[in-house]
Amino acid sequence: MAVRAAVAGASGYAGGELLRLLLAHPGVEIGALTGHSNAGQRLGSLQPHLLPLAGRVLEPTTAEVLAGHDVVFLALPHGQSAAVAEQLGDDVLVVDMGADFRLRDAGDWEKFYGSPHAGTWPYGLPELPGARAALAGTKRVAVPGCYPTAVSLALFPAYAARLARPDAVIVAATGTSGAGKALKPHLLGSEVMGSMSPYGVGGGHRHTPEMIQNLSAAAGEPVTVSFTPTLAPMSRGILATCSAKAQPGVTAAGVREAYEKAYADEPFVHLLPPGQWPATASVYGSNAVQIQVAYDEAAGRVIAISAIDNLAKGTAGGAVQSMNIALGLPEDTGLTAAGVAP
Amino acid sequence: MAVRAAVAGASGYAGGELLRLLLAHPGVEIGALTGHSNAGQRLGSLQPHLLPLAGRVLEPTTAEVLAGHDVVFLALPHGQSAAVAEQLGDDVLVVDMGADFRLRDAGDWEKFYGSPHAGTWPYGLPELPGARAALAGTKRVAVPGCYPTAVSLALFPAYAARLARPDAVIVAATGTSGAGKALKPHLLGSEVMGSMSPYGVGGGHRHTPEMIQNLSAAAGEPVTVSFTPTLAPMSRGILATCSAKAQPGVTAAGVREAYEKAYADEPFVHLLPPGQWPATASVYGSNAVQIQVAYDEAAGRVIAISAIDNLAKGTAGGAVQSMNIALGLPEDTGLTAAGVAP
Amino acid sequence: MAVRAAVAGASGYAGGELLRLLLAHPGVEIGALTGHSNAGQRLGSLQPHLLPLAGRVLEPTTAEVLAGHDVVFLALPHGQSAAVAEQLGDDVLVVDMGADFRLRDAGDWEKFYGSPHAGTWPYGLPELPGARAALAGTKRVAVPGCYPTAVSLALFPAYAARLARPDAVIVAATGTSGAGKALKPHLLGSEVMGSMSPYGVGGGHRHTPEMIQNLSAAAGEPVTVSFTPTLAPMSRGILATCSAKAQPGVTAAGVREAYEKAYADEPFVHLLPPGQWPATASVYGSNAVQIQVAYDEAAGRVIAISAIDNLAKGTAGGAVQSMNIALGLPEDTGLTAAGVAP
Amino acid sequence: MAVRAAVAGASGYAGGELLRLLLAHPGVEIGALTGHSNAGQRLGSLQPHLLPLAGRVLEPTTAEVLAGHDVVFLALPHGQSAAVAEQLGDDVLVVDMGADFRLRDAGDWEKFYGSPHAGTWPYGLPELPGARAALAGTKRVAVPGCYPTAVSLALFPAYAARLARPDAVIVAATGTSGAGKALKPHLLGSEVMGSMSPYGVGGGHRHTPEMIQNLSAAAGEPVTVSFTPTLAPMSRGILATCSAKAQPGVTAAGVREAYEKAYADEPFVHLLPPGQWPATASVYGSNAVQIQVAYDEAAGRVIAISAIDNLAKGTAGGAVQSMNIALGLPEDTGLTAAGVAP
Repeated sequence: MAVRAAVAGASGYAGGELLRLLLAHPGVEIGALTGHSNAGQRLGSLQPHLLPLAGRVLEPTTAEVLAGHDVVFLALPHGQSAAVAEQLGDDVLVVDMGADFRLRDAGDWEKFYGSPHAGTWPYGLPELPGARAALAGTKRVAVPGCYPTAVSLALFPAYAARLARPDAVIVAATGTSGAGKALKPHLLGSEVMGSMSPYGVGGGHRHTPEMIQNLSAAAGEPVTVSFTPTLAPMSRGILATCSAKAQPGVTAAGVREAYEKAYADEPFVHLLPPGQWPATASVYGSNAVQIQVAYDEAAGRVIAISAIDNLAKGTAGGAVQSMNIALGLPEDTGLTAAGVAP
Repeated sequence: MAVRAAVAGASGYAGGELLRLLLAHPGVEIGALTGHSNAGQRLGSLQPHLLPLAGRVLEPTTAEVLAGHDVVFLALPHGQSAAVAEQLGDDVLVVDMGADFRLRDAGDWEKFYGSPHAGTWPYGLPELPGARAALAGTKRVAVPGCYPTAVSLALFPAYAARLARPDAVIVAATGTSGAGKALKPHLLGSEVMGSMSPYGVGGGHRHTPEMIQNLSAAAGEPVTVSFTPTLAPMSRGILATCSAKAQPGVTAAGVREAYEKAYADEPFVHLLPPGQWPATASVYGSNAVQIQVAYDEAAGRVIAISAIDNLAKGTAGGAVQSMNIALGLPEDTGLTAAGVAP
Repeated sequence: MAVRAAVAGASGYAGGELLRLLLAHPGVEIGALTGHSNAGQRLGSLQPHLLPLAGRVLEPTTAEVLAGHDVVFLALPHGQSAAVAEQLGDDVLVVDMGADFRLRDAGDWEKFYGSPHAGTWPYGLPELPGARAALAGTKRVAVPGCYPTAVSLALFPAYAARLARPDAVIVAATGTSGAGKALKPHLLGSEVMGSMSPYGVGGGHRHTPEMIQNLSAAAGEPVTVSFTPTLAPMSRGILATCSAKAQPGVTAAGVREAYEKAYADEPFVHLLPPGQWPATASVYGSNAVQIQVAYDEAAGRVIAISAIDNLAKGTAGGAVQSMNIALGLPEDTGLTAAGVAP
Repeated sequence: MAVRAAVAGASGYAGGELLRLLLAHPGVEIGALTGHSNAGQRLGSLQPHLLPLAGRVLEPTTAEVLAGHDVVFLALPHGQSAAVAEQLGDDVLVVDMGADFRLRDAGDWEKFYGSPHAGTWPYGLPELPGARAALAGTKRVAVPGCYPTAVSLALFPAYAARLARPDAVIVAATGTSGAGKALKPHLLGSEVMGSMSPYGVGGGHRHTPEMIQNLSAAAGEPVTVSFTPTLAPMSRGILATCSAKAQPGVTAAGVREAYEKAYADEPFVHLLPPGQWPATASVYGSNAVQIQVAYDEAAGRVIAISAIDNLAKGTAGGAVQSMNIALGLPEDTGLTAAGVAP
């Protein structure tokens, strides 16, 4: 029997991608769709690509509307999930696609988000050590941020195998959908096309503490992260170039071996053959992660590069994957590892 | 029991898109994959987005390799399908994604392709009058060209309802994947990005006689077509802007009614609500067709605009849809009407 | 001695492009720069590409600020130019880059813009018959719209030589800068990239009466125009595909000859050699116009295609060219016919 | 009296951009244009954007053709410049836009290029300490690589002021024109659009020893460089994100001060105001360099980011700037610091 799912925040990019994936999920029936300022509008005018749902009308995001579902996905601005989640029963699976329940450290939350910490939920990145066990049967999931997904998957094997010093340098390029539908001048097509530009340089990006949390857990010691995000002229995709000084004695073969071992059984993470490098186009629209790793002997660094679709594996795909685990479904139900290319 | 399918020409864009769709098709098992100059190579290096098939190796395109399948898809350069098809049994479903069997008039074929005409197969555009019946149970399918798909669906209701004069003017924009993987200077990314340019102006495009064939059949009289294709800075998508002088007495309401009637029961063709216009992004990666129609009273013209994904509905999606009909499967099996956007 | 120029509306795309061109103009000194909501801001934060003017601060758009200049360029929303122009002396050259003074017919203005007609100024498209004479020495210039520039140059030779019937069909693609800096959801980079879509279909675009005015003047009889604009995934450029039924007796050679004659002495209009077609990338950032023309015998139509940069020749370049003529400077001063490509 | 300039390799992207700049240079007359496989062709078919030179025909690259010019620009594949330069007199200014004469260390050359080292010429990056003096009056110039231009300008002030440890990590994104016009599958528009991907990871890129040379000279000690180039979906532009561990005692104010001092008098390098970050769109088509620098206290790193146009300041603009210095012309003659945006 199909699981009945509601989506709060169905008019944004994350909500839209989630609905696209749920339409393809054989075990899910799409229930209530809610919005805030868009309540009352047809989904067809807000998400014109979701033709099978074009006639649906958005309802307001209230406990009444969200009641009576087996799963509720929250695609809300940060700071709003806790209040909604509290009103949903403990028997409902709540999957939060926002930031509210990702961080363990309340101080980090307050420093980067400027509001009281709501708590910590099981973390929806099943590929991390121990994560699957925490997700199985849970009724609450915190879906990771898109950058932390790309970066953690690129670097955790190096830290878990003690190949790299706890001092990571990360430069990542993202497609514009990562910035959402907010009407800001620098996100206009005229500004974006033909341009690469950084933002949040120098440690200010809110995804930084989440990366530190994941990499430090893998390393067993505090890891420092220098993170520079850049905006690229494409709608989707993250390419994360991550590196750290190699520990003494590291070899290219040893690095390769650690990554092969880490990802031998992962359905969505593809460690590419030597010589082939990730490309965001290859994972477009899919839940796949492409990873390649190299040891630069002259510079003494381990370099790991990952490509994901920020809206799919980086947000909505990760949410569906975690839902599958939480509900006891096969982990890849309704998800694909084949990208839409070219 | 799954149908076993082979793909001849698996290294190109059409073959790659077909494989992406077949991976998602619950009733198909992917058999032999063949190539010409690429035989012997891993699919992972040629189609890096098809991760689930990365380890497959291309075989040469021979009758032996293609034998033993229920369905054989041909994604070959024009002029090569007939020779291959002859060697396959009459009990095998052969779906030709090339041009060889689309035209009824041998003279048209010879004029535009410069070689002897191979014949005419049932035409894989189920939405045209009579097409579904011809496809049911057939063992041979000629998949339409991408432009004729977009143009025929935009205009045939106007001609079928005798709303327009037999003199159509069509300007269409296509993504670069329509030109295939051929290494030509004007297809380099540096040349394409930021640029719109026409090609094949003045009636020379090989898809023109196919449009004339379809529209004339709908109109019941010969239709003249002025067709100008343009290359747009995007990978996928066709936007076809089609118009013709209105017949006397035509009204906006009458035009709308004819299109509503024509597409009332079509699973993949969406006549948009008044005021909303097609966008190629909305059908990206899907089998959907967006259509809108207007009557410009001042200019006295019926204007119909369609958007499709040239590789999906325009090629591989149309092929799968036709295969489903030929095999007696539900027509939308393995296909989606939800585009990947933004 | 340098001419002193003020720019009202310096924070928008048209104003920014004008400033870029004026920086390269050897006979112009850039004076006051004004804005409305942006008054008081540094130009460096609004137009970060205009590095030589980064330290300039926008002043409010008032008669006092604009006083004391030889030339005043108005890059204002339509309906605002008349009030400003009235306060400037008759000895000041006023170049209006908006729509207010383009149309001769007050009824057309009121129908498409919904406000009282302000008047008609000499029309800044020097390539049209008689336009240069009207611009020489004038103190008031109405710069044409970007679409009418592209369309009029593509088609007027055909009408002037009586080659085409007075019934034109035009489909044009524009870069997103044509829509300006307005914060609208469909102009976000995420929406624009990878997508082609039409707008203002069926005769509603405000540039339509301007095209009709120009083409009717060339034809010596009223010309009907069916105009469909489309938004393309690029920042700049217009590709206009224009056609009309050929008059009886027209030949390919006759068409070619008419265009060669029309543009033999034009410094910025390049009729391409047979077989080469316009591309917007080729005119990027320049005042050049690329044109090609064909006679489609089977369809009986003359097809003329033009490419311009909508911000340069289509707006700011046309403004500078007209200023040069009005002031008696060589027409190409400060302008280039070489595009920035690839 | 104008300087007469020849361009060897006029059909490529570097040669085309050089010609665009020379067309705007008031002191240069464009002489012979040569090509290899393209000799005999009209420039209009190879560089359709250079309309003023459309009728020029390429000649073969021989000493006879190149004789009789004051300046000869070489835009040839690496390894070919020495043979040509030898045949040109010592009184001719030879500006090599290739790699042949950039490196001082013959071993580095042989390791990265696999051929005998041709020698070392004065280095055409005037902003580096001592570079202008070496360029004044020289008859031979080695124009820097595009990546080394972006990276050296971003980081040399930090090394010159001893702010950073000799261990730099660089991730740079380039537009596709950096890869030239070579017909390679991964450079097709269909592959490039919507995709970010790395290449030459792990120290293999040929520009690495040139960066090391420049940064080590600034630091007064050997600097290690980890360099990861990535291909971005745009035609032009380099965004270089560069960082290094800060030396003890470094402060944000100290970093800012060092950069302000280094670039106080540079006409083309713009250190942006605090809070504003470089964007490649802002320098498109110009000789400008945008730089911003930050001190990330938590990560203990100095982060410097630069944006250039790879074809302009990164190749042809740097060549013209160096020519101006060599000939004793004002350094900015024929060059602009205003980018073409949006």
